[in-house]
Amino acid sequence: MRKVALIGIGQTIVSEHWEKSLKELAGDAILDALMDAHINDFDSLFIGNMMSASANKQQNIGAYIADWVGARGSESIRVETACSSGSAAFRAAVLAVASNEVDIAIAAAVEKMTDSPNAEITANLATAADADWEASQGVSFVALNALLMQRYLYEYNWDHSNFAGFSINAHKNALHNPHARFHSELSKEQYISSPVICDPITLMDASPIGDGAAAVVLVPYDSIKAYGHQKIISVAGSAAASDTIAVHSRKDPLWLSAAEQSARQAYSQAGITEKDIDLFEYHDAFTIMAALSLEACGFAARGKAPNLALESKLQLTGHIPVATMGGLKARGHPVGATGMYQIVEVIQQLRGEAGKNQVNGAVFGMAQNIGGSGSNVITHILTNEN
Amino acid sequence: MRKVALIGIGQTIVSEHWEKSLKELAGDAILDALMDAHINDFDSLFIGNMMSASANKQQNIGAYIADWVGARGSESIRVETACSSGSAAFRAAVLAVASNEVDIAIAAAVEKMTDSPNAEITANLATAADADWEASQGVSFVALNALLMQRYLYEYNWDHSNFAGFSINAHKNALHNPHARFHSELSKEQYISSPVICDPITLMDASPIGDGAAAVVLVPYDSIKAYGHQKIISVAGSAAASDTIAVHSRKDPLWLSAAEQSARQAYSQAGITEKDIDLFEYHDAFTIMAALSLEACGFAARGKAPNLALESKLQLTGHIPVATMGGLKARGHPVGATGMYQIVEVIQQLRGEAGKNQVNGAVFGMAQNIGGSGSNVITHILTNEN
Repeated sequence: MRKVALIGIGQTIVSEHWEKSLKELAGDAILDALMDAHINDFDSLFIGNMMSASANKQQNIGAYIADWVGARGSESIRVETACSSGSAAFRAAVLAVASNEVDIAIAAAVEKMTDSPNAEITANLATAADADWEASQGVSFVALNALLMQRYLYEYNWDHSNFAGFSINAHKNALHNPHARFHSELSKEQYISSPVICDPITLMDASPIGDGAAAVVLVPYDSIKAYGHQKIISVAGSAAASDTIAVHSRKDPLWLSAAEQSARQAYSQAGITEKDIDLFEYHDAFTIMAALSLEACGFAARGKAPNLALESKLQLTGHIPVATMGGLKARGHPVGATGMYQIVEVIQQLRGEAGKNQVNGAVFGMAQNIGGSGSNVITHILTNEN
Repeated sequence: MRKVALIGIGQTIVSEHWEKSLKELAGDAILDALMDAHINDFDSLFIGNMMSASANKQQNIGAYIADWVGARGSESIRVETACSSGSAAFRAAVLAVASNEVDIAIAAAVEKMTDSPNAEITANLATAADADWEASQGVSFVALNALLMQRYLYEYNWDHSNFAGFSINAHKNALHNPHARFHSELSKEQYISSPVICDPITLMDASPIGDGAAAVVLVPYDSIKAYGHQKIISVAGSAAASDTIAVHSRKDPLWLSAAEQSARQAYSQAGITEKDIDLFEYHDAFTIMAALSLEACGFAARGKAPNLALESKLQLTGHIPVATMGGLKARGHPVGATGMYQIVEVIQQLRGEAGKNQVNGAVFGMAQNIGGSGSNVITHILTNEN
């Protein structure tokens, strides 16, 4: 494939954006990315989004947003894989540029959730699960994660309080990220006394939804000289894999096989192992997902992921820094846009532009975005080593 | 780009499939395509669908359907561009195989509409238009097309009855297509006496919705010897373009600029002109769209498309055969799946497997799929000349 370079990034704050519409949020991120890339136009827009059909009564948002940003005529398609829609759009853009058919692509993702009543958001999120055998039984998305966490605590003999480190680390890293939803430290006492949402998941295990958009400009690596950029980040690995959509269909519900498969494929493409990964933007929608993805990607042995948090190995200066800009837990989780935030944050780190959150000397950064309860997982490895 | 070959096709009848679910319909088409291709497995599934979020309370249908067809582990993403979702999924699959990153791709598309009440379908279809400035004003999708047709009749001095040929031709061609929704001829008298839906559009100007699924297997052209196929169809052109999402934003509402742009780009990729196209699967969601796309693609001068129907130039033995298996009007329009039906039908023609509907000696076949009121248009040219 043609090597793909990433020359522009943009993102809005994750928040409750009462004053901005879906297209305005997406437009803000896209225009920032274009300015960052020093370009005015593009060929193709790949946009990730999960719930605009119901939350915003708008589909066809590719054309809707291309029109808004003044890119009439450009190709414009929407990509959706539930909670991993953002990285699915990024991957579609990578493949398009790699194919030689598209020369300048925008990968963007947007979600505008907070206009909807909470019950509707819960119902919308449940469409990521199996409508026939999970959602139709009344199982919400948090309930599916609670079942997994309950089983994890039982099988591996952990106490709920042992998961505190995941959320504490995320909140600490968000403090200096101006685009994060939360800017408040979390103490262990606060974690432990946090109200239960769905036993054993508490409020402080769960990531907050929100409104937000992020965007990346992609061009062929061999064309970057034309743009005059200094720090060029490129795609070293891009892989996607699926698992059964219903959790109960899995022989081993505590193993995210699609996370393992896509991570292994991405390592192989990049010619590295997990030991070479300098930072990992993981999908900590719930602390249990953080633990399971660390294990599936090879950073912790089976059932041992909470040790990484207990031993402070997940911090910016630790063995494997995660959620370096706050993660889903504290940067926020605007569902279909989250995967693009992860990519943008990895680029910030690899450019050395992460400010107080900088992981020193980072060469390989990984982002893993999980759709459904592990049913649709997409892993990217980016690098500044060219 | 790596040349892409199409080695398997599958499709269900377009109908009211009360006995089949969304995944069963998609599975039937995908399994037929795999059998036709003589393969058992694939790397990536690209699925086109418009309205499963609301009509079926299911998103993440990539993983949902990959799971159902026994392809656990494979990449699985959904692509959505409203009414052109089917061809957008096909194009995503083309780019994936062309990029060298995917070796066996399934492009599939499915829509299961008839479980929903009619009012809900109308509201869902309106999400293809501009939510802010069209749908929110109460304009339905048929109303937007009626405004265009009204203007067309006025500007170019046609009578509504002059559009009869488009629908008569479609119904005639559907007679021998076992997958078509309708198998009844339409007379000019029936067309003229058909009830008005939204003046001047009558029931016989409009395509019927329906449930259905279609699928295509894509592999690199240089690998086809491994599969032992005789008649190999390949992708000669693939192009997508957008226009303003709201019709009122266009300087010239009677010119489908995205249809023109994507068709011209596809001609250029294939190294041909419209004169070399042997058959054209156009997007006759309404007869006005049939006329406008014939003009945008260069088959008729501006304002003159009805002449082609009046002079019988659109028939199977005519100057430019269209809707050769019944088109949207009579094969049916399962919205997000329609684009994949068009691709499957072009392949049937180029293989010489179109039975009584065969266009003799066809070498180049074109499919054009229109999302929104011309806001998101995707054009493909396929060929059996390799």
